[in-house]
Amino acid sequence: MAASSEYRPLSDKSLMVDYLKSTPALSSKLKDQFDDLDVREVGDGNLNYVYIVVGPSGSFVIKQAIPYVRCMGESWPMTKERAYFEVLALKEHGHLCPDHVPEVYHFDRTMSLIGMRYLEPPHIILRKGLIAGIEYPLLAEHMSEYMAQTLFRTSLLSHSTTDHKRAVAEFCGNVELCRLTEQVVFSDPYKVSEYNHWTTPYLDSDAKAVREDNFLKLEVAELKSMFCERAQALIHGDLHTGSVMVTQDSTQVIDPEFAFYGPMGFDIGAYIGNLILAFFSQDGHAKEGNDRKVYKEWILRTIGETWNLFQIKFVALWNKHKEGSGEAYLPAIYNNNEVLQLVQKKYMNDLFRDSLGFGSAKMIRRIVGVAHVEDFESIKDASKRADCERRALNFAKMLMKERRKFQSIDEVVLAIREVQ
Amino acid sequence: MAASSEYRPLSDKSLMVDYLKSTPALSSKLKDQFDDLDVREVGDGNLNYVYIVVGPSGSFVIKQAIPYVRCMGESWPMTKERAYFEVLALKEHGHLCPDHVPEVYHFDRTMSLIGMRYLEPPHIILRKGLIAGIEYPLLAEHMSEYMAQTLFRTSLLSHSTTDHKRAVAEFCGNVELCRLTEQVVFSDPYKVSEYNHWTTPYLDSDAKAVREDNFLKLEVAELKSMFCERAQALIHGDLHTGSVMVTQDSTQVIDPEFAFYGPMGFDIGAYIGNLILAFFSQDGHAKEGNDRKVYKEWILRTIGETWNLFQIKFVALWNKHKEGSGEAYLPAIYNNNEVLQLVQKKYMNDLFRDSLGFGSAKMIRRIVGVAHVEDFESIKDASKRADCERRALNFAKMLMKERRKFQSIDEVVLAIREVQ
Repeated sequence: MAASSEYRPLSDKSLMVDYLKSTPALSSKLKDQFDDLDVREVGDGNLNYVYIVVGPSGSFVIKQAIPYVRCMGESWPMTKERAYFEVLALKEHGHLCPDHVPEVYHFDRTMSLIGMRYLEPPHIILRKGLIAGIEYPLLAEHMSEYMAQTLFRTSLLSHSTTDHKRAVAEFCGNVELCRLTEQVVFSDPYKVSEYNHWTTPYLDSDAKAVREDNFLKLEVAELKSMFCERAQALIHGDLHTGSVMVTQDSTQVIDPEFAFYGPMGFDIGAYIGNLILAFFSQDGHAKEGNDRKVYKEWILRTIGETWNLFQIKFVALWNKHKEGSGEAYLPAIYNNNEVLQLVQKKYMNDLFRDSLGFGSAKMIRRIVGVAHVEDFESIKDASKRADCERRALNFAKMLMKERRKFQSIDEVVLAIREVQ
Repeated sequence: MAASSEYRPLSDKSLMVDYLKSTPALSSKLKDQFDDLDVREVGDGNLNYVYIVVGPSGSFVIKQAIPYVRCMGESWPMTKERAYFEVLALKEHGHLCPDHVPEVYHFDRTMSLIGMRYLEPPHIILRKGLIAGIEYPLLAEHMSEYMAQTLFRTSLLSHSTTDHKRAVAEFCGNVELCRLTEQVVFSDPYKVSEYNHWTTPYLDSDAKAVREDNFLKLEVAELKSMFCERAQALIHGDLHTGSVMVTQDSTQVIDPEFAFYGPMGFDIGAYIGNLILAFFSQDGHAKEGNDRKVYKEWILRTIGETWNLFQIKFVALWNKHKEGSGEAYLPAIYNNNEVLQLVQKKYMNDLFRDSLGFGSAKMIRRIVGVAHVEDFESIKDASKRADCERRALNFAKMLMKERRKFQSIDEVVLAIREVQ
């Protein structure tokens, strides 16, 4: 279709239907049947409006960005150009890992509007499944595959320098979303900020301790610098358990509007950190007849398998493509098994430590920063919630400071157990 | 002036004069006096043509890029757009440090042609001064000032994220020059390459040892990744002693066509690494009546002072601007002397280790890679030259592998002494 001439929110059903009728890429999905069209706004995210559109012969999702942060209101402006970068990332990651990224049908840059696959029931947000105590036997397999494919193949292990710098330059345009992350992940939790909140009064002194912990501030500075300076791969940028939709056999990663060329560990850490948060929230969801003990074991197993499978898949991609277009490790230099294993081991160790660091930062900010997680928020008893949160917070602080000492994900899982 | 309509090399004096006449920014410098104009091609660099233009009432330098690497010939194409990035860097660094960067009078992008201040005699290339054994009492003071100003003020210690990403994106365009560095500094010396050469047969086994040293390859991979991925500051990109012109009281940094947003340590390391090469070459220039012992001490003192003064100036800039526009360390977080000193100490320690790593890489490539340095090349006796080079090479290999163990520049200077 021709691009729309000016931006307007499709907040009204008749506006939406008019738009769909004039957009062949979308109307064709409905086989041009607009009677009995069901349009439902379902966005429960922090940023955008999301509509499920279901007709008798087809369906899709319409996601439209608005020029501010939805959960904060118009007082927190945010470029709607984020939709452009979201589509770039959906298409690139979708190309690299089609099984775990929903298909984009349509993009209208003027309208900041994306038409994409509707992830039909029983797909639910992974975070809600974790709160409900549902096991997903393929989750570690799928998420490790998604992360290995998208991170490896957008790094200099797969890119030429020329391709890499071109892509890096393009995603520098997504600076406002990067700034938002800088603020809410790496800054606000470590200072007095009007946006911060926590389970008060229980965590008042814990929040204060974070703001006064010089060694924590030293570590978070290093992580923030890496986030701002290191263009290692095209990362999702917000890969928590609310950005994943699941069924028993499907895993779909959504919402990459924070995508840019950043450190791989930020994605891996976000995901694993949120699994750890889910773990620590379980005691708050325990009830008579379901103490969640078995489920907690499944989460720990999933954490371990996610990293271990990721590592195996990532190194397998490296070995498969070692004579490919990637310019980081030229085959003429890394020309024997010994040196190749040496550099791979170092690469994966560094990435592991980065992931633990970013994971801990993501955990901390969800407990004393602006945006919290439903895992904890849904624990009604504030005292019980605070106990869960404090254990998670203390673990995260330890992990950020001690991350260089951990040799394997099994050691991390062991440390999580020891908190209990 | 209006931009030229098409590129043509000004290889002929009459073409040059016609060009100058039609270029007010340049003709005005000559007060429109074109009789008795002296035009001399003096480029002895690896890449471009450089003309000194001296008239009765004024002078300047014309630097024109050609679409290939001059020292390699047309078989090694290289975008002449490098002149655009050179001018961007000259202007930005010149704005930040006007005392040590020559003024740009004119730029013609179509012609890849820069008109700039002529650094009149007795300015000479620092490398030639080091070979001649001339002491420059202000050199450490000036170079530390240049590096502190240009690196601090183009980093996130001074930039907002928005300004930083905009500038990073622009300099991603200088990718061909980055690729050249990747190849000649981080790749070719560690593999068989038609471009490599060394003082044969003396260093045959030394060159082979570099190509077969797995632990060296492990270290150089980390340095290469940092060079390719880390947009820390607008670096000169080629800050060896041939990119500095000096007199007893003037120090001018030229030739930043390799400029891009990269790791600060690459500039600091390039400069200090080339001073170390100058040190190791001195025995080859010793002769009856001048054993160069005193001069070697001056070089070692200059190495120490350069880093120490740089560190003092850099931290002073940080303290001065700690409430400024830089977004890396927000004053509300780094809000007490203890935490500020903690992060500054870590920042400088990390930068020191990076600088030693890049410095060693720059040394190695000058001995077994494609482009050598006059410090060694001017030692006529091949056996004596090879002895000097081998000491430098062995020191550089040690430094690359052991750089994390050095706590101060004094320890590095001590290690240099111990080689002798």
